[in-house]
Amino acid sequence: MKKVGIAIHGGAGTILRSSLTPEKEKQYTSALREALTLGYDILARGGSALDAVETAIKSLEDCPLFNAGHGSVYNSVGKHEMDASIMWGKDISAGAVALIRNVKNPIELARAVMEKSEHVFLCADGAEEFARQLKLRFEPDAYFDSDMRFAQWQEAIKSSGTFLDHNIQSNGKAPEALGEKKFGTVGAVALDLNGNLAAGTSTGGMTNKKFGRVGDSPIIGAGTYANNNTCAISCTGHGELFIRSVVAHDISCLIEYKNLTLEQACNEVVMKKLVAINGEGGLIAIDKNGNIEMPFNSEGMYRGMKNRDSELIAIYK
Amino acid sequence: MKKVGIAIHGGAGTILRSSLTPEKEKQYTSALREALTLGYDILARGGSALDAVETAIKSLEDCPLFNAGHGSVYNSVGKHEMDASIMWGKDISAGAVALIRNVKNPIELARAVMEKSEHVFLCADGAEEFARQLKLRFEPDAYFDSDMRFAQWQEAIKSSGTFLDHNIQSNGKAPEALGEKKFGTVGAVALDLNGNLAAGTSTGGMTNKKFGRVGDSPIIGAGTYANNNTCAISCTGHGELFIRSVVAHDISCLIEYKNLTLEQACNEVVMKKLVAINGEGGLIAIDKNGNIEMPFNSEGMYRGMKNRDSELIAIYK
Repeated sequence: MKKVGIAIHGGAGTILRSSLTPEKEKQYTSALREALTLGYDILARGGSALDAVETAIKSLEDCPLFNAGHGSVYNSVGKHEMDASIMWGKDISAGAVALIRNVKNPIELARAVMEKSEHVFLCADGAEEFARQLKLRFEPDAYFDSDMRFAQWQEAIKSSGTFLDHNIQSNGKAPEALGEKKFGTVGAVALDLNGNLAAGTSTGGMTNKKFGRVGDSPIIGAGTYANNNTCAISCTGHGELFIRSVVAHDISCLIEYKNLTLEQACNEVVMKKLVAINGEGGLIAIDKNGNIEMPFNSEGMYRGMKNRDSELIAIYK
Repeated sequence: MKKVGIAIHGGAGTILRSSLTPEKEKQYTSALREALTLGYDILARGGSALDAVETAIKSLEDCPLFNAGHGSVYNSVGKHEMDASIMWGKDISAGAVALIRNVKNPIELARAVMEKSEHVFLCADGAEEFARQLKLRFEPDAYFDSDMRFAQWQEAIKSSGTFLDHNIQSNGKAPEALGEKKFGTVGAVALDLNGNLAAGTSTGGMTNKKFGRVGDSPIIGAGTYANNNTCAISCTGHGELFIRSVVAHDISCLIEYKNLTLEQACNEVVMKKLVAINGEGGLIAIDKNGNIEMPFNSEGMYRGMKNRDSELIAIYK
């Protein structure tokens, strides 16, 4: 049996043990376990990495704890704009959407762009029109609204900044008072029995974001990349720096052209190159041999991995 | 004196000698020469590669012959939606915009995103709002309207397809009847006296495009990439395949991690990898030593290069 496996993340940032109540911690852990199990079960039954990735991400999108789908943050006009992308390592096909509203599962739309359109990247109203033509499920604004995200938005307006969702502010306020400020993203990567790799990422972006800002999540090569020759990657972090560093593709190239191992490549990019430009965040990675890495240079990253031999769910360093 | 240099392109596609009248050919050549000269003069005076790239691209955007800025094609609702990106190899900073309307010079807005915002990628209405705040120049729809582009749009509607602007159709109609169907894009790359590299790309996208389709032009790593350690690249071609192949960054990685020369890296990506997936198009490239390559796998590419030793302007193979 090939070494099938899956890894997922629910965002990175300044997540300190002291900032999460034991109850909240249990909620996150349980949500991660559910997504991981749903995805892994598909792989164990011989299903495709693409199905495993989509299913795990949909589960995280449906959970209000994470900044994607249901739990997406508010933008500067009090709406929820989401981005997502998916890539299939077998034929390097890909689909991505940005700035979409009211679509229940952005990752499903990204996959539809990949499989049912001649395009890779659709944005805003046009992407929503495509989703309507395919009769994908929409939800009203109220589905995405929540007291916790609203409070974060109000706090962001007060400090007139755009929060990258979860870092503790330097003003010393307790994170509970400030709401969650992490790099809110969810993602999954998987290797299936046929040796095919897939990766996907989904996000509600930055709280109080303006100007149609788009981060790395829907950018193929930056936030998401999969190639059967090398690995599958999904990132979470300070999107601007991840775009400039073409993070996901860089790891693939270090493996393919410099013969680094997945671990070495992840270390080079996350712990050296990104750190050198203050690019806070992390990623999940699985290579064609089933090796899994989940490196991050922030305080914490919601993450989990599962293969035949082991299962791990973790939040802190 | 360091080997400063600049290269530009005005799109690739099925551009056959038989499809251009001598007069039309002269118009293209003269427009390319003007952009090339404006850009090179900045380098020769000791100006920055960033200024040279922006100036050359603005000149091409202002020329109605090319599908960018003034000459942008019509989308499915008869409007002109433009994308652009720019990258500065000195600190791998970058700026990009997508789906913007009425902004006279999209490359100027992309540079403003890079230099005057905390973001890298702004889209649609939000990006235009940012441009208005900076008092960048806007033009009414009429500025972008033209009989030639309108005829192309009508032809695209009739054949109910989205033209990648310039390929001769298989139905055997003369290209004049069908209008221009090439991968309409403009771009520039440059190396300055201080050893800094820059790259930029700008486009009006696909004729009759729907669903907020975005190609590779505004995607850092795909259509545009610059890094002082390696090279600067601007692409033109079938955007979807260029995104999936992360073309611009791939060339940089082949140089950095596999020690290929610029020529070898360009050959590997444009003539082998892209050809293998039917990814038609080309790119312009300059490396940190001033070597220039302008490879393409299509019938032609509007292109030009200039350094201390030579100048070349060409259209066909």
